[in-house]
Amino acid sequence: MRMVDLIEKKRDGRQLTKEEIQFIIKGYTDESIPDYQMSALLMAVFFQGMSEQECAELTMAMIQSGDTIDLSGIEGIKVDKHSTGGVGDTTTLVLGPLVAAVGVPVAKMSGRGLGHTGGTIDKLEAVPGFHMELSNEEFIKLVNENKIAIVGQSGNLTPADKKLYALRDVTATVNSIPLIASSVMSKKIAAGADAIVLDVKTGAGAFMKDIDDAKELARTMVNIGNTVGKKAVAIISDMSQPLGYAIGNALEVREAIATLRGEGPKDLEELCLTLGSHMVYLANKASSFEEARKMLTDAIESGKAIETMKAFLQAQGGDPAVVDQVEKLPQAEYKIKLEAKESGYISEIIANEIGTAAMILGAGRETKESKIDLSVGIELHKKVGDRVEQGDTLVTIHSNRENVEDVKKKLYESIKISGTHIQAPPLIYSNV
Amino acid sequence: MRMVDLIEKKRDGRQLTKEEIQFIIKGYTDESIPDYQMSALLMAVFFQGMSEQECAELTMAMIQSGDTIDLSGIEGIKVDKHSTGGVGDTTTLVLGPLVAAVGVPVAKMSGRGLGHTGGTIDKLEAVPGFHMELSNEEFIKLVNENKIAIVGQSGNLTPADKKLYALRDVTATVNSIPLIASSVMSKKIAAGADAIVLDVKTGAGAFMKDIDDAKELARTMVNIGNTVGKKAVAIISDMSQPLGYAIGNALEVREAIATLRGEGPKDLEELCLTLGSHMVYLANKASSFEEARKMLTDAIESGKAIETMKAFLQAQGGDPAVVDQVEKLPQAEYKIKLEAKESGYISEIIANEIGTAAMILGAGRETKESKIDLSVGIELHKKVGDRVEQGDTLVTIHSNRENVEDVKKKLYESIKISGTHIQAPPLIYSNV
Repeated sequence: MRMVDLIEKKRDGRQLTKEEIQFIIKGYTDESIPDYQMSALLMAVFFQGMSEQECAELTMAMIQSGDTIDLSGIEGIKVDKHSTGGVGDTTTLVLGPLVAAVGVPVAKMSGRGLGHTGGTIDKLEAVPGFHMELSNEEFIKLVNENKIAIVGQSGNLTPADKKLYALRDVTATVNSIPLIASSVMSKKIAAGADAIVLDVKTGAGAFMKDIDDAKELARTMVNIGNTVGKKAVAIISDMSQPLGYAIGNALEVREAIATLRGEGPKDLEELCLTLGSHMVYLANKASSFEEARKMLTDAIESGKAIETMKAFLQAQGGDPAVVDQVEKLPQAEYKIKLEAKESGYISEIIANEIGTAAMILGAGRETKESKIDLSVGIELHKKVGDRVEQGDTLVTIHSNRENVEDVKKKLYESIKISGTHIQAPPLIYSNV
Repeated sequence: MRMVDLIEKKRDGRQLTKEEIQFIIKGYTDESIPDYQMSALLMAVFFQGMSEQECAELTMAMIQSGDTIDLSGIEGIKVDKHSTGGVGDTTTLVLGPLVAAVGVPVAKMSGRGLGHTGGTIDKLEAVPGFHMELSNEEFIKLVNENKIAIVGQSGNLTPADKKLYALRDVTATVNSIPLIASSVMSKKIAAGADAIVLDVKTGAGAFMKDIDDAKELARTMVNIGNTVGKKAVAIISDMSQPLGYAIGNALEVREAIATLRGEGPKDLEELCLTLGSHMVYLANKASSFEEARKMLTDAIESGKAIETMKAFLQAQGGDPAVVDQVEKLPQAEYKIKLEAKESGYISEIIANEIGTAAMILGAGRETKESKIDLSVGIELHKKVGDRVEQGDTLVTIHSNRENVEDVKKKLYESIKISGTHIQAPPLIYSNV
């Protein structure tokens, strides 16, 4: 088998076989296939796509390129959730304790990553004392005891995917649905998930700006799951404006706590109930989606959800008192109000621009070396469709520097006010 | 400027600017742009193509990546000819002396190359004593004296093209019309041509199997010439069956000599007269294509053409006696006849298969290291449309081994005989 012939085959729109895909991924991992052939193949995939079968084979080949996590020591069906990423997306912090509260085992592996704010690990580090250096045995023990634990990424999971992603990043081949889908699914499956709930974001703050692309990505990921024998469901959710009100690490922890008490933003709560119901149902803890949803709302109302959050934080060294005293979380020195310059209705809050404003304040990493300021961020007071009067507070800027004219300018440009009432976009577009 | 952004731009079908193309070619030549980014760009070009302007800029950038040959010391307009390559294509050996005989300066730089037979240099080395190690001064002096000289490739011409070609070869991006066209044109212009006549072959033995692709390649090359200020014309000619009767190095020299005497195969003569007329006309030696053609047929009839061949060979150390005594050329030990197994009409002589048969005998190079046997090859006795009776000689195999069953088998498979009369394909399809 010669790589050049396989590139030509894909270039001409023909399907690669299982053996050919295994040859490619094995050869790329052991460096017998050079980057320059792989990047030509990736660009051919960008144009010609891959069939469902090819996506599944690629996913399996990437899983087999490295270690896999064995979660068989954990009782029950391990359901993982993956979001394609957005601005102010605090769902993981809410969902983990929420579904654990009704008995779904949450054995989460999480990373730091680049972005407008930190990853789930960074956010949790806003809780004094919290850590996630757990041995494999401790991790499994904690999940069995509390139904939830989070551990930092370890082991050599999907090295082919890591190598491919680095190459895609510099060859303009990131934005290919088969490649995105197989990358996500290979990581989740290698990390031990039995079933996967996918939250595919669409809109200005999402990777998939276009809803049709989001749907295709969702379908592709669900198909991969089904083909390789893992249950998977996906929803398409809005990311034209940020989710919830908080964008920033400690701010999002505070918002997650409020949501677990039933006092959070309605959009964040609704998305968590939807995703959570899918997780509960896939974990066989409810016989219908409706029953699952009822279990989750009960857990919030009864206080079981917030108690699970406390137990989870405490088990990993965190101070559970932050749950009742959120002022113990890192606080920024300055809280600066941004006032509306005119009256009207909020017509647009451009999610990615708001995210960039948070990053400028220090909430996110631009490069791997950047240090995050956990206390800073953006707190919205209005969402799309809300009425606003001149002088009302649109945003509170949480900052450790006094002069935030650059951030104010960006925010004014990104929050549009219209004379006529604008309907808020739907939060959830469809299920796949 | 970042290469990844330029790859994305081309991937999305947008045009690269002059500055961007120069950045790419300069960066690739000085190795600041790695192979893996260039191969991704090449695959994007394969799918998205390049505009006329982009092709011209790419051609100029590749010329500027290395040395250029200065032929200003040669009187008159230097017209070069390029063929996209075929089987039994002896046109260069005929055309050089033919147009030189009517005063067109032929300052030819030629290579060895891979293929079914050797390149022009290999073929000429069948003439005892002939050499082409000439200094630049000798080369220019000989062209001014005899109107023709041939020199081996020297200098660092279009290094970017050489590097790109090697990369295309292993990344399935050879077969892209803008890349082929700019490669050909950059080499010809760097070698000092003022005007270029292009012979684009189509059919089984050609790189462009399809006539529409051949036409597009021809148009692209002519457009590049026009855009960069060089006169260019192209014809599309048939390569479904071999050109002429001879495939092999010494055999083709013999056929070229016969053609210069007016005793060669009609198809080879016609193609040489057509290409030659374009060269004479572009060189401003005739006021019309018809007048040019008349000058060339006169040169053949008067013996001027064959005399120019002799003077040319002698000037570069070759024995001019071979022209009158072709048996002085290298001869194979065995001349084996292939007889028709049935009566009928020749319906097909698959050019590339016949070429492969010649290569198996030793007439061509499979790798750069292969050694060529100048004496061996295939001599056809019939062409498509000819009547043949059972037992007639179809082919004489010129071989230095006695057992040629493998070659015979290939030839029988490649020469088809039909019960009904088949029209020979047109030799020349169109001008561009």
